[in-house]
Amino acid sequence: MTYCVAMCVDEGLVFLSDTRTNAGVDHISTARKMSVFEVPGERMLVLLGAGNLSLTQAVLHELSEPTGPSRPTLWTVSTMADAARVVGQAVRDVHQREANALQEFGVDFNCSFILGGQIGDGDEGVAQPRPRLFMVYAAGNHIESSRVNPYFQIGESKYGKPIIDRVLVPSTPLDEAAKCALISMDSTLRSNLSVGLPLDLLVYQKDTLKVTRFVSIDQDNAYYQMIHRTWGERLRQVFSEIPEPDWQSTGDVPQNGHVGEMVLYRPPGALHMDADRGTPGADVRAAQTLAQADKPKARG
Amino acid sequence: MTYCVAMCVDEGLVFLSDTRTNAGVDHISTARKMSVFEVPGERMLVLLGAGNLSLTQAVLHELSEPTGPSRPTLWTVSTMADAARVVGQAVRDVHQREANALQEFGVDFNCSFILGGQIGDGDEGVAQPRPRLFMVYAAGNHIESSRVNPYFQIGESKYGKPIIDRVLVPSTPLDEAAKCALISMDSTLRSNLSVGLPLDLLVYQKDTLKVTRFVSIDQDNAYYQMIHRTWGERLRQVFSEIPEPDWQSTGDVPQNGHVGEMVLYRPPGALHMDADRGTPGADVRAAQTLAQADKPKARG
Repeated sequence: MTYCVAMCVDEGLVFLSDTRTNAGVDHISTARKMSVFEVPGERMLVLLGAGNLSLTQAVLHELSEPTGPSRPTLWTVSTMADAARVVGQAVRDVHQREANALQEFGVDFNCSFILGGQIGDGDEGVAQPRPRLFMVYAAGNHIESSRVNPYFQIGESKYGKPIIDRVLVPSTPLDEAAKCALISMDSTLRSNLSVGLPLDLLVYQKDTLKVTRFVSIDQDNAYYQMIHRTWGERLRQVFSEIPEPDWQSTGDVPQNGHVGEMVLYRPPGALHMDADRGTPGADVRAAQTLAQADKPKARG
Repeated sequence: MTYCVAMCVDEGLVFLSDTRTNAGVDHISTARKMSVFEVPGERMLVLLGAGNLSLTQAVLHELSEPTGPSRPTLWTVSTMADAARVVGQAVRDVHQREANALQEFGVDFNCSFILGGQIGDGDEGVAQPRPRLFMVYAAGNHIESSRVNPYFQIGESKYGKPIIDRVLVPSTPLDEAAKCALISMDSTLRSNLSVGLPLDLLVYQKDTLKVTRFVSIDQDNAYYQMIHRTWGERLRQVFSEIPEPDWQSTGDVPQNGHVGEMVLYRPPGALHMDADRGTPGADVRAAQTLAQADKPKARG
């Protein structure tokens, strides 16, 4: 599997990808999933790919070695939306060529991409068209990020989603967005073996029209080590500082109807049977409720 | 969908389930997913179910209204392992009855269960067989939790897994395990609409052989509100306290080979082409590296 995330904030773009690829758990290898298409001063595009590696690489070949000179390419399009369509068309070309043959072997046409970047309008000193971020699906269609949804993920996205949902907004500074992406990746690495180091991190500052910062992060990277260690430690500390629940009987607090009852089964014929409810053997019991303990309980 | 989690720690067991069920996003309803089978002083079993609601309820009917008197039931088995086999057999009975008919409508036989509890050996005052926790799959087979893997999840498990992986160990006190389960649920609720309040939380203290604590948590529950608010706040605070990356050129630090290079494409025929590498249009560029900023950067 894969985990890739890209963010579009006011200051620019952040891209982060892992490099693990596997065909079964006993066939694990490393593949780069981030590709950069750059003409300094003119355009800077980043493509992240997830899914079947032969498919994502085939799409990359279509894009990096365009065939017919008449068709638009990532080098010739003048807007990011057109660039997303070029990627979508490449996916459809690969689908037409590969999907049937793969299906005979029971292999799904499984690939998805994140495309982000900025293409200048040729006028220096004037405000450039803004950086944009797209998700391109296996069917070649695409969606764009927005201010209410300023990021995309592909691959094993769920583990690392909660932290992004909590901290990322369009006004998040670039370096802070990069930190958020790394923490999201760290949570994913911790919980899922199919995602692995090294990581490719690229930060793009708006209107520079070239790669601003790029780093490949392996286990020796001091900053990632710090995040990995500190985030876990501080998370455990915050966890221990949150008060434990203090259990109170519901006699003390108002209850709203059946929501508070437990679904309880008794053995057939048991004396505890609640005949009123007409469900033989089923019973309900009044619940307790939770309050917040005044202070953390003593630990063992 | 569903999110259920159960934990087996030294002091006992914790069970937490949401109550959202849906058949498509426009058909959302509430269903209880936690069922308790209890004979106070003798046995206390909790079953959590995820998957197709008609299937999990069918299994529950098999278990709560056992038919043939000759077969073992949750009321008659003398060990938790036997109880897991009873649940597995009920799943297989339902499969035999339902699977073919469902398949004709393209509906998968999709259900899974967590079973936990303790069955006493009848001797008061003597050490009882320990509480145990099992996961029962749709095929009726099961696995048991262990000290290195003291919890099980079913349903939308990935969002809430990182926090459990970071804090839960067998020596975690019961109330702290309950708090961990609630935080795990809160992260899931935040990131996935198919999981919803109210929640059923049951805490079982070892050797009591009856439900110790049970609460149904809705949006008015003060403790859950506090967790929901505090955890997000503190997470953002910890996030902001972690130093931002400080970018340095790689000239200052040792690099290990190609790992540090960026996969960079240039337009065909561009002057930047790196002919040495034999890949027309492809280029690599030396990477930067990350250090830890001495202090958090000023915010905008």
